[in-house]
Amino acid sequence: MTDIATLSLTEIAAAIANRQVSSREATQACLDRIADWQPHLNAFIALEPDEALKAADAADAALAKGESAGPLHGVPLAHKDMFYEAGKVCTCGTEIRRSFVPDTSSTALARIKAAGTVRLGTLHMVEFAFGPTGHNVHYGDCHNPWNVAHAPGGSSSGSGAAVAARLTFAALGSDTGGSVRMPAHFCGVTGLKTTVGRVSRFGAMPLSHSLDTVGTLTRTAEDAALLLGLMAGADPADPTTIGGDLPDYLAATKGGLAGLTIGIPDSFYVDDISSDTAAAMDATIATLVREGANVVRVSLPDQRQLSAAAQVLLGVEASAIHLPWLRERPQDYGAQVRARVENGHAFSGVAYLEALRWRGPALAAHLAAVTEVDAVLAPVCPAPSPTLAETDVGGSFNAEAVIQGITRFTRPVNYLGLPALVVPVARAASGLPVGFQFIGRPFAEDVLLRIGAGFQRATDFHLATPELPA
Amino acid sequence: MTDIATLSLTEIAAAIANRQVSSREATQACLDRIADWQPHLNAFIALEPDEALKAADAADAALAKGESAGPLHGVPLAHKDMFYEAGKVCTCGTEIRRSFVPDTSSTALARIKAAGTVRLGTLHMVEFAFGPTGHNVHYGDCHNPWNVAHAPGGSSSGSGAAVAARLTFAALGSDTGGSVRMPAHFCGVTGLKTTVGRVSRFGAMPLSHSLDTVGTLTRTAEDAALLLGLMAGADPADPTTIGGDLPDYLAATKGGLAGLTIGIPDSFYVDDISSDTAAAMDATIATLVREGANVVRVSLPDQRQLSAAAQVLLGVEASAIHLPWLRERPQDYGAQVRARVENGHAFSGVAYLEALRWRGPALAAHLAAVTEVDAVLAPVCPAPSPTLAETDVGGSFNAEAVIQGITRFTRPVNYLGLPALVVPVARAASGLPVGFQFIGRPFAEDVLLRIGAGFQRATDFHLATPELPA
Repeated sequence: MTDIATLSLTEIAAAIANRQVSSREATQACLDRIADWQPHLNAFIALEPDEALKAADAADAALAKGESAGPLHGVPLAHKDMFYEAGKVCTCGTEIRRSFVPDTSSTALARIKAAGTVRLGTLHMVEFAFGPTGHNVHYGDCHNPWNVAHAPGGSSSGSGAAVAARLTFAALGSDTGGSVRMPAHFCGVTGLKTTVGRVSRFGAMPLSHSLDTVGTLTRTAEDAALLLGLMAGADPADPTTIGGDLPDYLAATKGGLAGLTIGIPDSFYVDDISSDTAAAMDATIATLVREGANVVRVSLPDQRQLSAAAQVLLGVEASAIHLPWLRERPQDYGAQVRARVENGHAFSGVAYLEALRWRGPALAAHLAAVTEVDAVLAPVCPAPSPTLAETDVGGSFNAEAVIQGITRFTRPVNYLGLPALVVPVARAASGLPVGFQFIGRPFAEDVLLRIGAGFQRATDFHLATPELPA
Repeated sequence: MTDIATLSLTEIAAAIANRQVSSREATQACLDRIADWQPHLNAFIALEPDEALKAADAADAALAKGESAGPLHGVPLAHKDMFYEAGKVCTCGTEIRRSFVPDTSSTALARIKAAGTVRLGTLHMVEFAFGPTGHNVHYGDCHNPWNVAHAPGGSSSGSGAAVAARLTFAALGSDTGGSVRMPAHFCGVTGLKTTVGRVSRFGAMPLSHSLDTVGTLTRTAEDAALLLGLMAGADPADPTTIGGDLPDYLAATKGGLAGLTIGIPDSFYVDDISSDTAAAMDATIATLVREGANVVRVSLPDQRQLSAAAQVLLGVEASAIHLPWLRERPQDYGAQVRARVENGHAFSGVAYLEALRWRGPALAAHLAAVTEVDAVLAPVCPAPSPTLAETDVGGSFNAEAVIQGITRFTRPVNYLGLPALVVPVARAASGLPVGFQFIGRPFAEDVLLRIGAGFQRATDFHLATPELPA
């Protein structure tokens, strides 16, 4: 059964549609791997094997009658446990919502489900999506399948770990400060952070209204394109979504790298990075050039200012959202999240409005600096995944410094609202994966997916699969 | 010439259109009264007599050829000096903008100007529209035409004083915390504060994005209806404006009071008010009943909480808008405005978002309390106009307390975003006027104008004209 579970999302969807593999076989293959891996990874918060198999049988029965719900008919999936599904418990990785049953469904999730998917259960996440490592005091830490002593990355920890270990064919995540890109990098999978406004946030647990984005963790860029095509576009329930015609994302993945220009930052993203990361950058540039892309140096505006502004928006908005719970159930937070929702109260309203106001000018300055390039290539993190132990800082006095260090290459993108695609680009000497982010123009996810798919046709880092620990 | 200047806006517009009065005669009548009154009132910041007479002659020449620009063809007007007109100095009552020449025009002003008006000059206002009394350290204080020792009210001080003294047939004002209603009450004229979203704020100096509204000071409710009909509605340059069909405001003024229900608050607005104000309330209720309205008591939610929330929005937004000037030109502020833009920095971002978030629930609670009434009647202020001397608190430690005391009946309406119409309802024993506000439902300015016009057909407080001081 292992062979089935290692197919990509696109491949399993085609195999089920062509009746080469049944939905039950695909679902059972995932359940078998989950049974093996879950004790090592803790990637799932809830598992629903009986319901999943029942749904798979129904999908098979429908298909036998020539009925298909859509392009993901019968494909078993699990998602980060913060996408509401009416009537199903959605813990958001928290004690406070351990028994929360929403009465509405996430638009992004509903659109994917409408394509025919089977629900396997729900995936681990950092409490309230507020943290980059994958620790969770309420549900236990999630582990990196490449080395279970290491962090899977957060806050979409279960999504990264489960896709990497081939426990689900893909997973939704969210990215407010790097929460899709960090687990993609740490776990060696493909991570798409979308442009603010491209995918509806309705029914996705809010952390920061200005910064939150829905994204995907998948095996390939092609898989990300398939999911984005299902999710993207206007949603009356989320007035921040943008309407209009959408690119054909799957078609875009066929474009290849020839003729594209990739910018390499001349500072910040190349400063103080590990030797693994620096070597991966050289190798990635060589691959891009070999595949026909132009690679040029770009000088970006000061990224530290962008991070600082993102920090203000995140702190204020998260603390405002959490105000009622912080008053009524402070003891039910983990120490780190509690400290962070408390700290956000220190920012002034004027600082908040300034951080909002500066977003337009900062984006204009960024776009002026990248007029010649289709995307900017940058590491996701200065190094591969750290150990869970060394990043287990809880609510200690240096927790914020550790968090800022890990997320310093991801937060500027959130402030600017830009899309970014993470693809695995190397394996470090330790065996841990290295993923880099291609940072695009607003709403140009199609260009990023073209780059990612082209890169993945030329490389095999995305095909590597971790070994089950002894 | 005095007879001409005492006509209402509607009357002078008709008289010019019918060629009973020329635009030059109307303009000269205003200029003559301005020459008499300006030394006593300081109601104008800038006077443009030559340009005005030239424009009036052009209007007369056009009319002689049968050409009319619109329903205010040839009518001379002046407005609060914060409505940008491209190429004209717009001081905003400040030292900082003493020579500011905008390159765009206020939508509200441009729509009125397009109806054919003649520009007389610009009217006095409180520095940056940030104060309720009419003091101004940069351009001198404005005075109340009923007693020049008294405050005209602010921040639309010149608009109130000039309309009361019949120096202009009407004037634009703005109302962020009471700045239209205060001068209407203190000076005995009709003041319309519009619903947030009804009139474009584009090109009007911003004080607080959440609270700012454009309004009018006029002799009658009918005049306010005429101006609102010209200004109201969607404006692509101000995305907070609401589109859709508009009521016929002038037609609404004919409706009369019969069949309408007016609510009288059972607390707050009737607590700690002067004996003049209490007597005016009794007399006003009697008039309303005599004219066929039903008058009932209503219990409104706690208005102090609304004021507190308005204070957070105003403080944060004004301080954010003023941040660059506060950094670069702090010495160019008057003491009171400087203290207020400094104090706004003390509010947290979380408090700001809470004040924004609570606006919907607070409005819902208000509307639930007024389901049975067409408008709520309330004093604008606990007493008639105070003296300029007793309210000359500058930046002193008790300035904020004095300001809060004066505006306590106006700010709740700004927080809720509701429309309100002030009409003169009495004359105090001191000879100073008393105006009350009818507070309406969102976008129901037509109902308020119907009430105001009906009340003014039954009373003559709005016809009283102050005597030129000896």
